[in-house]
Order: sequence, then structure tokens, then C-alpha cells
Amino acid sequence: LYNLVYVCAVFVNGFACKDPKTAVVEDFYFSGLHMAGNASNKQGSAVTAVNVAHIAGLNTLGISLARVDYARYGQNPPHIHPRASEILTVVEGSLYVGFVTSNLENKLFSKVLNQGDVFVFPQGLIHFQCNCGTKKAIAIAALSSKNPGVITIANAVFASKPSIKDDIIAKAFQVDKKIVDHIQAQF
Amino acid sequence: LYNLVYVCAVFVNGFACKDPKTAVVEDFYFSGLHMAGNASNKQGSAVTAVNVAHIAGLNTLGISLARVDYARYGQNPPHIHPRASEILTVVEGSLYVGFVTSNLENKLFSKVLNQGDVFVFPQGLIHFQCNCGTKKAIAIAALSSKNPGVITIANAVFASKPSIKDDIIAKAFQVDKKIVDHIQAQF
Amino acid sequence: LYNLVYVCAVFVNGFACKDPKTAVVEDFYFSGLHMAGNASNKQGSAVTAVNVAHIAGLNTLGISLARVDYARYGQNPPHIHPRASEILTVVEGSLYVGFVTSNLENKLFSKVLNQGDVFVFPQGLIHFQCNCGTKKAIAIAALSSKNPGVITIANAVFASKPSIKDDIIAKAFQVDKKIVDHIQAQF
Amino acid sequence: LYNLVYVCAVFVNGFACKDPKTAVVEDFYFSGLHMAGNASNKQGSAVTAVNVAHIAGLNTLGISLARVDYARYGQNPPHIHPRASEILTVVEGSLYVGFVTSNLENKLFSKVLNQGDVFVFPQGLIHFQCNCGTKKAIAIAALSSKNPGVITIANAVFASKPSIKDDIIAKAFQVDKKIVDHIQAQF
Amino acid sequence: LYNLVYVCAVFVNGFACKDPKTAVVEDFYFSGLHMAGNASNKQGSAVTAVNVAHIAGLNTLGISLARVDYARYGQNPPHIHPRASEILTVVEGSLYVGFVTSNLENKLFSKVLNQGDVFVFPQGLIHFQCNCGTKKAIAIAALSSKNPGVITIANAVFASKPSIKDDIIAKAFQVDKKIVDHIQAQF
Amino acid sequence: LYNLVYVCAVFVNGFACKDPKTAVVEDFYFSGLHMAGNASNKQGSAVTAVNVAHIAGLNTLGISLARVDYARYGQNPPHIHPRASEILTVVEGSLYVGFVTSNLENKLFSKVLNQGDVFVFPQGLIHFQCNCGTKKAIAIAALSSKNPGVITIANAVFASKPSIKDDIIAKAFQVDKKIVDHIQAQF
Repeated sequence: LYNLVYVCAVFVNGFACKDPKTAVVEDFYFSGLHMAGNASNKQGSAVTAVNVAHIAGLNTLGISLARVDYARYGQNPPHIHPRASEILTVVEGSLYVGFVTSNLENKLFSKVLNQGDVFVFPQGLIHFQCNCGTKKAIAIAALSSKNPGVITIANAVFASKPSIKDDIIAKAFQVDKKIVDHIQAQF
Repeated sequence: LYNLVYVCAVFVNGFACKDPKTAVVEDFYFSGLHMAGNASNKQGSAVTAVNVAHIAGLNTLGISLARVDYARYGQNPPHIHPRASEILTVVEGSLYVGFVTSNLENKLFSKVLNQGDVFVFPQGLIHFQCNCGTKKAIAIAALSSKNPGVITIANAVFASKPSIKDDIIAKAFQVDKKIVDHIQAQF
Repeated sequence: LYNLVYVCAVFVNGFACKDPKTAVVEDFYFSGLHMAGNASNKQGSAVTAVNVAHIAGLNTLGISLARVDYARYGQNPPHIHPRASEILTVVEGSLYVGFVTSNLENKLFSKVLNQGDVFVFPQGLIHFQCNCGTKKAIAIAALSSKNPGVITIANAVFASKPSIKDDIIAKAFQVDKKIVDHIQAQF
Repeated sequence: LYNLVYVCAVFVNGFACKDPKTAVVEDFYFSGLHMAGNASNKQGSAVTAVNVAHIAGLNTLGISLARVDYARYGQNPPHIHPRASEILTVVEGSLYVGFVTSNLENKLFSKVLNQGDVFVFPQGLIHFQCNCGTKKAIAIAALSSKNPGVITIANAVFASKPSIKDDIIAKAFQVDKKIVDHIQAQF
Repeated sequence: LYNLVYVCAVFVNGFACKDPKTAVVEDFYFSGLHMAGNASNKQGSAVTAVNVAHIAGLNTLGISLARVDYARYGQNPPHIHPRASEILTVVEGSLYVGFVTSNLENKLFSKVLNQGDVFVFPQGLIHFQCNCGTKKAIAIAALSSKNPGVITIANAVFASKPSIKDDIIAKAFQVDKKIVDHIQAQF
Repeated sequence: LYNLVYVCAVFVNGFACKDPKTAVVEDFYFSGLHMAGNASNKQGSAVTAVNVAHIAGLNTLGISLARVDYARYGQNPPHIHPRASEILTVVEGSLYVGFVTSNLENKLFSKVLNQGDVFVFPQGLIHFQCNCGTKKAIAIAALSSKNPGVITIANAVFASKPSIKDDIIAKAFQVDKKIVDHIQAQF
């Protein structure tokens, strides 16, 4: 019955339902979190996610994992998880991390984390991690959803497809449209 | 027993627990949603929220309401609700609305809404409403939480207290720090 | 991934799952809440619901909307939502509203609402709205479920198909069976 | 009482307001379900509930129990549980049971249950049990809430305190106000 | 099978994959709880479960039922329900029952129950019922899940398929592997 | 403690019992996960948990973390988390891991994990990790609850306080009481 409900339920939220009798140990397994993601990009970071898209057995279990690699001076830029809270621990290096609370305070809670430090990013709040040091850094993060989602703020605002009209963004950020166009052009 | 559990439970999530025998009809009531909020501000919009902070009886009920007023050319700038989905209907005027999906697509779903149109903003996604017309507009929005929270993107990123370091934002938005400093100075 | 999980999930509770790549803005949109429902009926009210049956994108989001029109002296008769709490605001006119708490108290909480007033009906409690004035009235209501359900008490008790035996109802309401038969005949 | 309901049982879930060291086995225990309730009343039934008000340890556990005694020709009249589904089994005697689905169908699902039969009443739907036989009957019911609540339809509609205005009920039930007044007078 | 578990019962909650018009009263009904399970086995007990596998209409309702028969000196050996809390009442005979709290205390809460006594076993905790008397005993138990699952500790540890390696169990139970092999051979 | 757990962390979710203005970044922070737990014990493993007892800000967020150190030939013996699923990744060394499904199958899903491998243990199922190698091993595990709880099977069954009667355990494990007494004496 276990197999029936949990593995078959993989279908429920959009994934294919397999015959429970065919469930195998691989449905609960993923390999590769020991390998560094390629952080040679503009932000200098790479996220390797392990969620229900990678492990079918996570369906209905309300949890997932991720490894984040940070190049020197790299950062995981301000982003949100629309359906999850996050708890992160630094495996190697140091990170300056923070989150901003809701309106009206918009208070920044930030801290420098060293190896073995743990930090919590509550659901839906904008947060970031920055490798302020000259060595690479590695973090392991857990999220309270099988499918937490990621919204990188800059990309969603300035690089959506199609673009949000520049006059909307210009007014939101209280800058000239030329600046908005300039930022949009970077992406 | 009803009163006991639901009104008294108001304490659980941070509100004072009153003797259930003293619960009164006012605990389920709010007045004022007929009055226009003052939209004479930089964004040209005003949100009048009605949540558990205004109606104690909403505690544990998973719902709240808001009225949004838009001046001509005003907008409710890109924002998220960290703990709620939203369904909105236009009571007066026209609105151009949209939301952006998660990474990697960051697809913009947008539409012009007229009076009586209804639109859904799924939980945690960045969304906005813009009064593109020359007349004021009014919307009523419902949210799937007694305490949905609001995070205005521009304010949380560029006007947190204290500020997020400008080099973090500059890299995130792929612009010069001077531009970041310029934007921060607007708030 | 967003599209995959949320739009495809439409299947979960009985709706067809479409290929997420085919999700369109219309899946989050409904038109028509500006039009008055036809309240020219015995109760003098009309509910225009906007839930997952009308907007597929509401699936899993835990919220829906409704417009209620009241003819002069019309009422939305005593009813319950088996799977939702409700928050209502008066858009036009005045309403006398109320809900009754559970046994043993069965206490009536009632109030006259004017334009802009907001009232909460906790999940599963019997409640009603009555337009006691000589002008039509309009309300917008939000419900904490994609599919809240409505059970009009009089209809469910006296006009189910097939009928509840009249001796059961007669004893429940402590009246003669002739009265029950008389009431049943009205529906 | 607040502490009782919300905190003490939290002990087995890890925390307590009451010093967890003082938690005792009695916090998970109730005695008396072997005793027949007094069904010598107008409806000819008696419910003996065992929920969080009787067993503090049920807090947060989402379940409760009840024994129902039915006199000959007695009934548990049409009622709803605003916060729970129910599953019932007949321990002695026979019962005619039913529930009515939501609008618009208001379909009655009914069945005669004998000893050992089990029936389900989905959350928030109006349901009843009637002892159509000449012998007493006994049922055990389980509910999916620590505090399910009970709303006896007739009492909530015709005997609330204060009364719902008789013209509201008269129109809802489509009968003359005299009939409403007559019914109200029975309670 | 998917249809059975996930969709059909959704009918009373509003929708169905199976054509709702084909839903019948049998979808909410089970017969047979008056019959004693065959407790003539090594443990001297038999559980007759009534969950979503037996009543399709239980889907989404978060509750199920079970009858437990105990031979004289029989027991329902230490077990857990991975997805449910339990509330049990003794219908006939006497039972010595108990549960053990989590680490580090591992405190045993136990009690002798007589007819009509009720006891609660919180979610996921190891618990047991033992018929210490010379007469048979019967209990009715309710569980807070449509599909609670049962894990009999001894069977899962010593009789899984394939077996857990005996040196793992030997170290866990701090005994010689021969003892583990001896126990495994019993199953 | 009550206030701490139920209210203070609610601050980032919008409200607080503790004055929200006194919330500090330390409420979301823990230090020490880089330090090996002392695995010099009979099982050869040590769990360093980071949950709501260590980070007040985890309240309501549904997630927690743990580091597990394994001595050579050490194991995290068969145990369950009554209120959480688990996802684990091997940071160093190799582990043989497994879980057993519910009755009646009691199927063992097991696998050897190497560095960077990830494995899922569904809620409430008995599972274990064993360091079969000659080098120490380290794992990071995430759990889907702020307070998942741990029940080490051997300890809960054979070393509860007070003890479960040895004849109950003897029958459950189908062995002579002398063996039970022998095992109990080890703890």
C-alpha cells in the first residue's frame, strides 16, 4: 500500500504515475552532489538542485536539497523561493548572507557565515549569499518543498520573456527609463 | 466551544487570547473599504488591507482582503506575497496586470483587465498592476492567508534598512555601482 | 517548472492535465464579474462564482471569489461552505448579515453592513445576507478554497433528490409532517 | 484552558508550555464510552463526544471520537461538522443514514446500515442517522479534527440566540412566517 | 487505480475524474466490521482495516477506521503508523496499552483499559495493545489518515525482504549476531 | 519556551509575541555544524541536530537540519522520525543505507551511497545508515519539520523508562523472554 500511495502519487502533481510494483530504489536516489557546479558565470555561482524533478520519490514529502558553489567574489544573487523556506549550512569558505523582511520595515538581517554555520531564510523573503572571500565557497541548502521554485529578482524583473514594460519598471525603481533599458540590455 | 477555539486561538499566532465569552460581533467586522486610499504618491497607488491585524476573527481562517486604488497612470509596482496566492477583480477602470514565472523561463503572463475581469497571481510570484488609463481605477483583491505579507521588490532590494551592499546589487543587476547608488538615493 | 507543477496539477482534483507548455494567460483569467446576476427569483439574490471550475489556474491555490447581487428585499438564504471560510465586503447598498455558532450555544452574530464594510463567516458555519433596504445591493466575497462548495440549508433539507423522509425532518424540526410536506412542496 | 488545548499535548510533539515532565498518562486517556448516553429526549439520541476538550493529548493530532446512542425510533437529526469528516460504524442495531451533496444537485446518498457496517460523511455536508427499528442502536463515530464542532441544523436555524428574523427564514424556506414562528416556538 | 484513490471520491468535494453522475452510495460504504478477525495466530490479534483501499469515498477526507480482535493473551505488537495518530476505544474485554516517547526520554506511557476507555497514540510513536486477560477483547480504532500505514516493528526489523544485514541489527540491539539470526529465523 | 516556539519566530511571518523590534539576526542562526560529533559510542555515530530548539526562527517553517558523523564501522541504527521525511547527502566516506516499507510487504530499499549521493527516507519509515568502510563518514540530512523527533527502535523497544513488559516483547519478536531480558540488560 505504501508504494501505491506514495510512488503512484508522483502522478498527482504532474509527474507520470508508474505501476507501484515497479518502484525501485533508484526512485529515492540521486547522484552528483559532490561535483562542483560551474560557477564561471556573471554571478559567480551555480546551484545544483535535487528536487522532485530529479528524485520521483520526493513527491508528497515536502522537502528537497541543493548544493551551491560560489566562485571567489561570486554570489547567489537576491532571489526568492515562492513555495519554501530554506535552511543553509556552509560546507567550505565564508559567506555574507542576508534576507529582507516584508513591508513596511524591509529590515535587512545579515551575517557573515563561516564553515559549519547555519542560517534560515523564511518562506518567500528576498535573500542572497555572497562569497566575499578570495577562495571558493560551498553551501548545502534544504528547502521545505518538493518543488520550491526559484525566482532570481533581477532576471524576473529585467529579463522576463516578454519584457515588463520599461515605464512600469522605471516608476517602480524611480529611475529614468534609459536606466531601465540599460539594465535590460545586460541580460 | 467554537468561540473558545477560534477566537481564543488568536493568541497562538501572536495575538492576545480573550475570554471566549467576551467575543463580540466586532471581532468579525471591519469598516472602511468604501473609502479610496490616498494614491497621491510616487507610485500612484494605495493598498487598504483587511487582514488578521484588522479583524481578529480571521485568525486560523486562511483568508484576507484588500482594496487597491490607482491614480491615473498609477501602478501597484512589482511585488510578492510570501505566504499567499491572490485573486483580483477590477471594480472600476482598467488595469494592465502581469506575473512572471519562476526560473528558468521567467515567462511574463500579462493582460489588460477591464471592469469585472478577474485575474490570479499564484503564490510567491512577482506581479504588478498598472493603471494605463487616464481615469482612476479600483480593484478588490483576496489573498489566501490571514497574514499574506507584501514585499515591494524595489523597496526590499534598494531601500532595505540597512542597505544591501551596493556591489551585491550591482552584480545582481549587472550594472555599475553608480547606478545602484543612484537608485538607492531615490528611496 | 512552475507551469509543469501548477497547471498540470489541475488534473489532481479532477480536471484534465494539459501540457504545461500550452499554458496560456487565459488559464488565470475570467471575465464577467461586472455584470449583475439575475436576482429575479424567489430568494431575490444571485451568486456569480469564480472558482477552479472557471479559472483552471486556481488549482492548488486555495482561494476563489464570488459576486452576490441582491434584489430589493432579496436575501442570500442561510447556507454553508463545507470547505471554506468567507470574507465579504459590501460594494453597494446595505446588508443585514449573520452567522450562528456551533452547538451548544448556537449564538447569532449579526450586523448591518453598509458600503465598504467587511465581515467574516468562519468555515462551515451557517450564515446569511439579507438586503433589508429598498435598493439593490452588491457584495464581493472571497473564499479560502479553490472549490468551496455551497449548501443552501433549505434546499438540502427540504429539496434533496430524493427527499429526506418527512418523518425525519418532522422530528428534527419538531413539527407535524404536514408542515414538512407543505414546505417540501414549495421547492 | 488555553494552555490545556494548545500547549500541553505539544509535549509528545516536542514542546510544552506546561512543564513536559509533568505530562502524565491521564493526558491521553478518557473513561466512559461504555455507558449509554441518555437518549430520552425529543430526538431520541445522545452523543458522547471525546475530543480535545476531554483529552488534552489530542491537541494537534487531528482526530476525535464519539459514541451515539439512539432510542427506538430515535434519530441524530440533520447536522454538520464544520471542521471534520466523519466515519461511523454501527455497534448495535440498525440505522438509516444519509448525507446530501452540495448545490446544485443536493443529491441524497442514503443507506440502511446494520451491525458492523461503516459509512462516511464527507466534511461539511448535512447528514443524519435514524434508528428506524424498534430496538435501541449504538454507533461509534470518528472525526478528522481534535475539535470538529457540531451544528444541528434545526437548532441553528430556528433556535439561535437571538433568533434569526422570521422573515428571513420564512423566505428561505418559502413558507408563511406563522409556520416559522410555530417552529421556533417548539424549541 | 489512480482514479480510485485520487479522484472518484473527489465527487462530494465537488469534482470527479470518474463521471460524478456515476458515483453511488457504495463508494461511501463498507460492510463487515461486526465480524471478528481471525486472531488465531502467533501474536493472537487481527486487525480489520477500513481505509481508502476499502472505501473510495475516504479519499481526501483524512480519516479511517479499524477493528482489532485480541485472543486471550493476544497482543497487537509494538508498531507505528507513519502517517497518522490513533484514538482507540475498548469495546469488549480489557487491554494493557502503551506508547513510548521520542529520544532521549523514551518514556513509556501505559495504562490498563477497560470497556469504554479511550486512549490516544500520537503520530509516529511506537505503541502496542496487549490482552492480558483470559477473555477475548475487541477495540475500535480511528486514524487521522485515509491511508495511515502500519509498520510492525519486529517484522520490519527482523523480517524485511530482503533482510537487513544481521550485523547492523546486532549492533543496533547490542546483541550477538547469533541472537539476531535466531530471531530472524522465527519469522 | 512556549513563547519562543510559538510566537517569536512568527515575526518574519508578520507577528510576534516577543516584541518584533527585539528580533535579532541570531534568531535565525546556529554555529557548529563543522565540528564532528563524538562518534566514540556503541553505535559509532553521532547526530548534531539543528532544529527549532536551536534556532527559534525555524518556528512555523517546516524544516530542520542535522549532521551525522559515523566512526569506521559505525552506524546510525534503525530509527524513525515520527513527524518528518528526510533527505540525506553523503559529504565524506561511504554509507550503506536503507528503509523498510509498511506492512504487508516490509520491503527493504537499500543502496550503497558514496560522496555526493542523495537518498530519501519517506515519513515515518524505519531507516538506517551504516558506515561499512574503514574510514569515517559524514552526512548532512534535512528533515521536513521544525521538530522532527527521533525514535531509535532498539532503545524505544528495549530501553524505555519504565520497560515494556518482557513477555510483550518476547511474543512480538517471537523469542524466549530470556533473550529479551538479555537485550534489555545491554542498554
